[in-house]
Amino acid sequence: MDINEAKNNFRDIISKLNAFNHAAGVIYLDALTAAPSDTAEGRGKTLGILSRYMYDLSTGEPTRETVKYLLENTDKLDERLIRELKEFDRENEYMRSIPAEEYVEFTVLLNEADAVWHKAKEQNNFASFCPYLEKIFDTNRKFANYYKPGEDAYDVLLDRYERGMNKETLDKFFRSLRERIVPLIKKISQAPPIDDSFLHEEYPIYKQREFSDYLMKVMGIDRTHCGIAETEHPFTTNFNRKDVRITTHYHLNDFTRSMYSVIHEGGHATYELNCGEQYDGTAISGGNSMSIHESQSRFYENIVGRSREFIEYIYPEICRIFPDQTAGHSAEDFYRAINKSEPSLIRIYADELTYPLHIMVRYEIEKAVISGQAKVEDLPDLWAEKMKEYLGVTVPDDTRGVLQDSHWSGGSVGYFPSYALGSAYGAQMLQAMKKDIDFTAAVKEGNLAPIVGWLTDKLYRHCRMYDPNVLFEMCCGESFDPKYYIDYLEAKYTELYGL
Amino acid sequence: MDINEAKNNFRDIISKLNAFNHAAGVIYLDALTAAPSDTAEGRGKTLGILSRYMYDLSTGEPTRETVKYLLENTDKLDERLIRELKEFDRENEYMRSIPAEEYVEFTVLLNEADAVWHKAKEQNNFASFCPYLEKIFDTNRKFANYYKPGEDAYDVLLDRYERGMNKETLDKFFRSLRERIVPLIKKISQAPPIDDSFLHEEYPIYKQREFSDYLMKVMGIDRTHCGIAETEHPFTTNFNRKDVRITTHYHLNDFTRSMYSVIHEGGHATYELNCGEQYDGTAISGGNSMSIHESQSRFYENIVGRSREFIEYIYPEICRIFPDQTAGHSAEDFYRAINKSEPSLIRIYADELTYPLHIMVRYEIEKAVISGQAKVEDLPDLWAEKMKEYLGVTVPDDTRGVLQDSHWSGGSVGYFPSYALGSAYGAQMLQAMKKDIDFTAAVKEGNLAPIVGWLTDKLYRHCRMYDPNVLFEMCCGESFDPKYYIDYLEAKYTELYGL
Repeated sequence: MDINEAKNNFRDIISKLNAFNHAAGVIYLDALTAAPSDTAEGRGKTLGILSRYMYDLSTGEPTRETVKYLLENTDKLDERLIRELKEFDRENEYMRSIPAEEYVEFTVLLNEADAVWHKAKEQNNFASFCPYLEKIFDTNRKFANYYKPGEDAYDVLLDRYERGMNKETLDKFFRSLRERIVPLIKKISQAPPIDDSFLHEEYPIYKQREFSDYLMKVMGIDRTHCGIAETEHPFTTNFNRKDVRITTHYHLNDFTRSMYSVIHEGGHATYELNCGEQYDGTAISGGNSMSIHESQSRFYENIVGRSREFIEYIYPEICRIFPDQTAGHSAEDFYRAINKSEPSLIRIYADELTYPLHIMVRYEIEKAVISGQAKVEDLPDLWAEKMKEYLGVTVPDDTRGVLQDSHWSGGSVGYFPSYALGSAYGAQMLQAMKKDIDFTAAVKEGNLAPIVGWLTDKLYRHCRMYDPNVLFEMCCGESFDPKYYIDYLEAKYTELYGL
Repeated sequence: MDINEAKNNFRDIISKLNAFNHAAGVIYLDALTAAPSDTAEGRGKTLGILSRYMYDLSTGEPTRETVKYLLENTDKLDERLIRELKEFDRENEYMRSIPAEEYVEFTVLLNEADAVWHKAKEQNNFASFCPYLEKIFDTNRKFANYYKPGEDAYDVLLDRYERGMNKETLDKFFRSLRERIVPLIKKISQAPPIDDSFLHEEYPIYKQREFSDYLMKVMGIDRTHCGIAETEHPFTTNFNRKDVRITTHYHLNDFTRSMYSVIHEGGHATYELNCGEQYDGTAISGGNSMSIHESQSRFYENIVGRSREFIEYIYPEICRIFPDQTAGHSAEDFYRAINKSEPSLIRIYADELTYPLHIMVRYEIEKAVISGQAKVEDLPDLWAEKMKEYLGVTVPDDTRGVLQDSHWSGGSVGYFPSYALGSAYGAQMLQAMKKDIDFTAAVKEGNLAPIVGWLTDKLYRHCRMYDPNVLFEMCCGESFDPKYYIDYLEAKYTELYGL
C-alpha cells in the first residue's frame, strides 16, 4: 500500500458508508412519514443487511489496515484528512468493540421496537413495550462496557453523544437549574396566569401547512434543498448538505405546537444546510455534536422564535392567515401566550422555562436504570414520582408519561441531556453574538441573515473539524458556563410575569 | 464448495440483492413523492454506489461459480430453487452478452437522452432528440444481436419483456384489432356523442383523496400493507409482498383520471399483495411478466371498474362525497360518461376502446425501425400518418405525437405491446373466471373477494414460478387468443352506443 492508494481506499470507504447511510436514512424517513403500518418486517431485513455492510466497511480488515497505515503517515496528510481519520477511528473503536452479530441484532430489535412502541403509546400499554425497553437499556449498558470496560456505563453513553460530558458536569448543571429555576416556577404559579385560550381555537390544518411554508421562508431556508413532511413526532434528518428534511405534526386546536416544532426543526435544518462545502462527502461532514445541534434548534425556537421582536414581525402574517382566531388579540397578547409557563406532562410541548426539568426527569431515570438502581418495569411509577416532585404534575397514564418519547425505542440512552445543554449553549452564544451584530434589530426586521451568517461563520461551516468543546470556545470565546442560561431564563420570565 | 454451502451462498446473494433493490426502490419513491427539487446530485451518487454493489453481486465471479455449480447439480435441488437459478442466470446471461464498456456507454447515453427528451417534448423539437433516439434504437438492435446472434432483433426485444412473445403473435393480434376495432371506432364517431361534461366540474382534491381511500377499500386492499402517495405520473412499486405503494395524481377538473389511476394501480397492488408467501425473498418473488401485470391493472380498471355493475355499486358513495357535482346525473349517466370513446392524441388519457390502437402505432413503428424499414428521422411523419389512419386524428405537433412517451428515451424498445396484451389477457381471463364464479354478481355486490380469490389461486400465488405463457394457460385453460378481447370490446361498445 502506498500513500495515494491508501488515501483512495479511505475515500472509497467513506463514499460507500455515506451511500449506505443515505439509503438507510431514506428508509427510516419513509417508515415514519409514508409507509403503511405493517411493513416493519421487510424493512428490518433490509436494514439488517445494510447494517452488516456498514459494519464490515467500518471495521473490516482492509479498512483497519488502510486507517492504520494512514495514521502512521500523518506527516504526509493534510489536517482535514487527519481529523477524518481520527474521528472515523474513534467511532470504529466503538464499533469494533461490539461483536458483529450483537450489533445487527440490535438494529433488528430497534426496528421492531419502534412499531411496538407506537402501538404501546397509542394503547397506553407499557407492559407490551417493557421487554423491548429492557433489552434496549441492557444492550446500551453492554455496549458501553464493551467499549470502555471498567468505566461507568452511563458516563460512557453520555460521552458518546457529547464528547467530554459526564455525570459530574451534568449533576452540577441540573443542580443549579433546580436551585434557581424550581423556585422561579413556584413564584410564577402564584402570579396571575396568562390567558392563552385563543391559541386553542380551531386552526385548520391546511392553513397551518401554509403557515409552515411562511415560517421556513422567514428563517431563510432554501426549500429546493429542504422538505417538510408530517410525522407523529417531529424530527430533522439530512442525507447530505443539499438534502435536508424536517417533519412536524399539526394539531387542530393547538396551533403553536406545530409552529414551534417547525422553527425548532428548521433550526437543525439551517445548521445542516450551512455546513462547509469543503467537508461534503467526508467523514466529518454535517453538524458537530448532539448538544451543539440542539443549541441551534433551541436558539431559533426560543431565543429567536419566542422573542418579542420576532412575534411582532410575524404577527401580521398570523392575523392574515387566521383572522377569526386572532381577532381582538395583539402581538403582545400572542407573545405572552406563547411564553406562558405552566408545568405540564409532555416534554415536547413544555414551555421554555419548565422544559429543562423534563430533561432532568429523564436524566435521573437513565442514570438509575443503567447503574442498576432502578428496574425498567418500575419506570412508570418512577416517572410519575419525579414529575410530581419537580413539576408538581400528576401523570394520568403512560402515554403521557414514560411512553411519550421515541428516543428510547430508537435505541438512544444518554441523549436527552443534550437537549438541556443545547438550550444552555444557545444562551451563551447569544451573548457572544451580540458583541458582533445587532441581534435584536435583525429579528425585528425579520431578516435572520446576519444571525445565520454569524453562526455559519463561527459554527456551521466547521462541521466536525473540532471537538464540541473546542468549537464552543471558538464560537463563544470562553468555555461553557450555565450561568448565561439561568440568567437569561430568570430575566425573561421575571419581566414576563412582572415578578 | 458443497451443495449446502452453494445453496447458502445463493440465498445470501438473493437476500442482499433484495435489500439493495428495496433501498434503491425507497430512494426512487422518495424522489418522486417527497424529495425537495434540487436533491438529485446526492441521490445519484448513492444510487450509483448501490448499483455497483448490485452489479457485482449479480455478475461477480463468486456468484457465477455458485450458480454454475448449482446448475450442474440440479438433481439435488427442489423445483423452486431450480427455477430461481434459471431465472437468475437468464437475466445474467443477457448482461454477460453485452461488453461492459458498451453497457456503461448506453447508461450514459440514456442519462443524457432523458434530459434531451424532456426539453425536446417541452419545445416540440424532435430534431434535437432524433440523434439520441437513433442511437437508442441502434443500441437495442445491437444488444439483441449480442444476446441472440442470428435471431430477429425485434423478436429478441419482445421476448425480453414478455417471454415467448414475437412478431408473429403480435401481428395477428393487431391485425384482428385493426379489422374489427378500427371500423367500430368509425361507427361510434358517427353516433350521437356522450355528454361527460359533469365529470369536468370542480372536484376538490381533499374529497378526491377521501374517495381514493373508499376505492381501495372496495377493492379489498389491505391498507396496513399498501400506501398511497401523490406523484406527477401514477405508478405502483413494491418492496416486498407486505409493503406495496401506489401513487396517483389529482386533477381538480377531471375527477375520474385519478379515480381510474387508483383502480389501475390498485390492480397492480392487489397482484403483489397476493403473491405466494413461499416465494418471499426468493429470486422469483412478485408478479410474473409485464403483460401479466398489466393484465391485472387493466382488469380492475376496465373490466371491473368501468362495468355498469361496479358503477351502480359505487355511485351512491360518489354522490355522497360530491353531491353538487353529481346532482341530476344517474349512475347510468356516470357509466356512459366514463366509457365515452373518442379518438385522441395522448395514449395515457385514451379510453378503453381506442387505447390499443395507440399501442399499435408504437408497435408498427418499433418493428419498422428495428428491421431497418423506417428511419428514425421519418418517425414524426410516420406517427402522424398512422394516427390519422387508425384513429382519424390529426397530430398537431410532436409534443403530442412521437415525443409524448418516456419509454424510448428510457431505452425501452419492445415494451409497449405489453400494455395492449395486458388488456387482451384480462378479457380472456374473464371468460375463464366466469366458468368458476359469478363475476357479475360479485361486482354488483361490491364484493371483489371471489374475483381476487380466483385470480390469486390461478395467477398471483405462482409469482414467477412459470413462464408467462405457461402461467397464462394454467389460468385460462388455453393459450392466448385475441378474439375474447375483441369480442368484449365490440359487445360493450355496440351496446353502449346502441349500434
